Amino acid sequence: MELLKALCACHAPSGSERPLRDFLLHYIQTHVPKWKVQPTLVYGDEWQDNLMLVFGKPRTAVLAHMDSVGFTVRYQNQLVPIGGPEVKSGYTLVGQDALGPIECTLEVNEEGYLFYQFPRAIQRGTSLTFKPDFRETKSYVQSCYLDNRLGIYNALQLAETLEDGIIAFSTWEEHGGGSVPQIAKWMVETYGVRQALISDITWVTDGVFHGKGVVVSLRDRNIPRKVYLDKIIALATESGFPFQLEVEAHGSSDGRELHQSPYPIDWCFVGAPEDHVHSPDEKVHKADIKAMLGLYQYLMKHL
Amino acid sequence: MELLKALCACHAPSGSERPLRDFLLHYIQTHVPKWKVQPTLVYGDEWQDNLMLVFGKPRTAVLAHMDSVGFTVRYQNQLVPIGGPEVKSGYTLVGQDALGPIECTLEVNEEGYLFYQFPRAIQRGTSLTFKPDFRETKSYVQSCYLDNRLGIYNALQLAETLEDGIIAFSTWEEHGGGSVPQIAKWMVETYGVRQALISDITWVTDGVFHGKGVVVSLRDRNIPRKVYLDKIIALATESGFPFQLEVEAHGSSDGRELHQSPYPIDWCFVGAPEDHVHSPDEKVHKADIKAMLGLYQYLMKHL
Amino acid sequence: MELLKALCACHAPSGSERPLRDFLLHYIQTHVPKWKVQPTLVYGDEWQDNLMLVFGKPRTAVLAHMDSVGFTVRYQNQLVPIGGPEVKSGYTLVGQDALGPIECTLEVNEEGYLFYQFPRAIQRGTSLTFKPDFRETKSYVQSCYLDNRLGIYNALQLAETLEDGIIAFSTWEEHGGGSVPQIAKWMVETYGVRQALISDITWVTDGVFHGKGVVVSLRDRNIPRKVYLDKIIALATESGFPFQLEVEAHGSSDGRELHQSPYPIDWCFVGAPEDHVHSPDEKVHKADIKAMLGLYQYLMKHL
Repeated sequence: MELLKALCACHAPSGSERPLRDFLLHYIQTHVPKWKVQPTLVYGDEWQDNLMLVFGKPRTAVLAHMDSVGFTVRYQNQLVPIGGPEVKSGYTLVGQDALGPIECTLEVNEEGYLFYQFPRAIQRGTSLTFKPDFRETKSYVQSCYLDNRLGIYNALQLAETLEDGIIAFSTWEEHGGGSVPQIAKWMVETYGVRQALISDITWVTDGVFHGKGVVVSLRDRNIPRKVYLDKIIALATESGFPFQLEVEAHGSSDGRELHQSPYPIDWCFVGAPEDHVHSPDEKVHKADIKAMLGLYQYLMKHL
Repeated sequence: MELLKALCACHAPSGSERPLRDFLLHYIQTHVPKWKVQPTLVYGDEWQDNLMLVFGKPRTAVLAHMDSVGFTVRYQNQLVPIGGPEVKSGYTLVGQDALGPIECTLEVNEEGYLFYQFPRAIQRGTSLTFKPDFRETKSYVQSCYLDNRLGIYNALQLAETLEDGIIAFSTWEEHGGGSVPQIAKWMVETYGVRQALISDITWVTDGVFHGKGVVVSLRDRNIPRKVYLDKIIALATESGFPFQLEVEAHGSSDGRELHQSPYPIDWCFVGAPEDHVHSPDEKVHKADIKAMLGLYQYLMKHL
Repeated sequence: MELLKALCACHAPSGSERPLRDFLLHYIQTHVPKWKVQPTLVYGDEWQDNLMLVFGKPRTAVLAHMDSVGFTVRYQNQLVPIGGPEVKSGYTLVGQDALGPIECTLEVNEEGYLFYQFPRAIQRGTSLTFKPDFRETKSYVQSCYLDNRLGIYNALQLAETLEDGIIAFSTWEEHGGGSVPQIAKWMVETYGVRQALISDITWVTDGVFHGKGVVVSLRDRNIPRKVYLDKIIALATESGFPFQLEVEAHGSSDGRELHQSPYPIDWCFVGAPEDHVHSPDEKVHKADIKAMLGLYQYLMKHL
């Protein structure tokens, strides 16, 4: 859980993913000798802040976004949201500008506009994120940014034994996307990979519960192809790991950009459910994290 | 009209187009010997559920979407719309899950939420569509899903005598698209085709009437290039077939994805107008269907 | 200022950019002998109405959209907006249909619907734009369509001394885009250019003022990559030209389509601020126009 805790504490809202990419690069370079298969690492300026790992002869890609929701400092103490953070007066936000580290307080006025309270003006364009407060009990983990540091954690655990597949750490997911189209082009044109799993976190709802297993989402704002969903459900059933089916009208993921790309990529969102979404108190059941990893290992072998 | 009736009865909401693709494949393979030119058929898993026909040396592509609006079963009797279906308590919906065929009743509550009434729970993720009820009078046809089974019907009639052109049967149009980007890439890169017509159904409005001819849409949410529209209008006038001009602020079609693609494809929506859009009672005048086919035949020859 | 005045008077709403493209072609062909470097001109039907200039060995592209907001004539005196024009009863609109030139009056009813007042019916699909009324004082220029004819003017001034770079005149920006994806593909695939500047006009706000310098926008609806923004701010500071930083939640530009393209293009909006946006009375401070050109010249040399 130390890895997850460190991931959740990394300041990397949409557009500022570089620190998390560098954290991952360092982690991977340190741990890769113990992995079953040595992946090829793909990254660099011609990839902006994306990072990809290619294992063996890939048939399926796992996408996990690095960025989190947050806030951009405007002027006159105003804040502008990055993605859709939960907002409540009193939340503590952290960041850094040229004058030093920042720990300030979020204020939401009656019309819903956002401000910060801090003894000095913060430089325009500075990004702020929730102050990390990682909590763990026997059954649960709770922290800001389990969405999607848990999806990344899952991908890193999966990497340890993965034989064939792509793991792609993407950017900008919380704020309208922008990096997945390049990943889609590359995975199809270079490797012929046309199957994808979205390693991300979804919501506890009136039909999806803590501790009942990983969620296989049959649709959100976008609708995956039935032919592919049927295959995933059959394998999930076969796998023996507990899973729940979700059907949503709204919400979206890196799957949306795969869907809209000019490549015939089938995709499905598979991830643990959480409570208190996009707040400093995101909460996930440990059994669902375990089921998530188990199902990913099974799917990557049999898809 | 038997063909149109069969098309309208096919269960193929967005994401579940495979049955209609298979129906079309079978129809085409049966009828193609009588067609003037033998097209190349393009389809298969690397095309998801799309199906394309290439005739002679194509200069223009006709796009007709296969999918319809519908509903996805959630839990606790809830339904989530696929695309934008007209909803009214009492509509009969049909589908199938692992437990057998389903014929249930749509219920809309006061807040606009959707439910089904059926003696048993329907499996999560099951798709439902309006129960077919095809009606024909001397002047009109009426059925669910004339949008866009009539656009497909038009394309199949056109295919009988088409010498040069592409006909593409696309997917997901009613629910945000996703398949046209691949078709755009292919038609430009493989055939250099940069002209398109959208064979789809539009609305009867306060300026567009039943029986007054096929509609040439000068804009909807997207605005085609004037240079191309001028060409279409000149040819339509020359053709002698009755047509009406439409100007809309809203609405969209497969043209949107051609427009936004990284290829310089000019496009124009050309299709018959209907009443009672996206309901079980879509209604089109037969004279407009005839004008639609006539204008397509003329445009495909002269564009 | 005669050039800017002529640009502002050109009728070229989204979809009808051909007259402005032809104006620019003629202007460029006339003036190019005096330019420092002779660019390659890229245009033609396979580019729809786009026009691109390639200077030397380009590292950075400047995008300036040609189109303006406006109105499309519907039926029964109705108008449909092109993009988001400011609307007010009494504005004078101009255009042309097959029956001759049009100068009519805009009428906005209580529900916000738009109509024209003119002695005869105007043909369906005819586009109308604000009647030009170019005004100049010692400090300000004021006219319709400074957005984005000023961005084009800036690009043309820049062209005179530009040694290495791409200038792209794009289309459809005011109405959802559509032409930038092709430009993105071409600039990366043909020239390996992955840096972009958006030469466009932004808003005077409670943190951005007339006469305080060109605006470097740190975000709008989309968030550019921090790594690139940091580079731009450092160079802008170094340049000595006055500039202001903007942070917005809304608004968009050609940058959006570069962002969403399958190419790793970094982009930043750099442009003068204006008052009375999208009205016949757009107003910009001359000092900001000067700072804009100066900063572009510096950035294109040092990026």
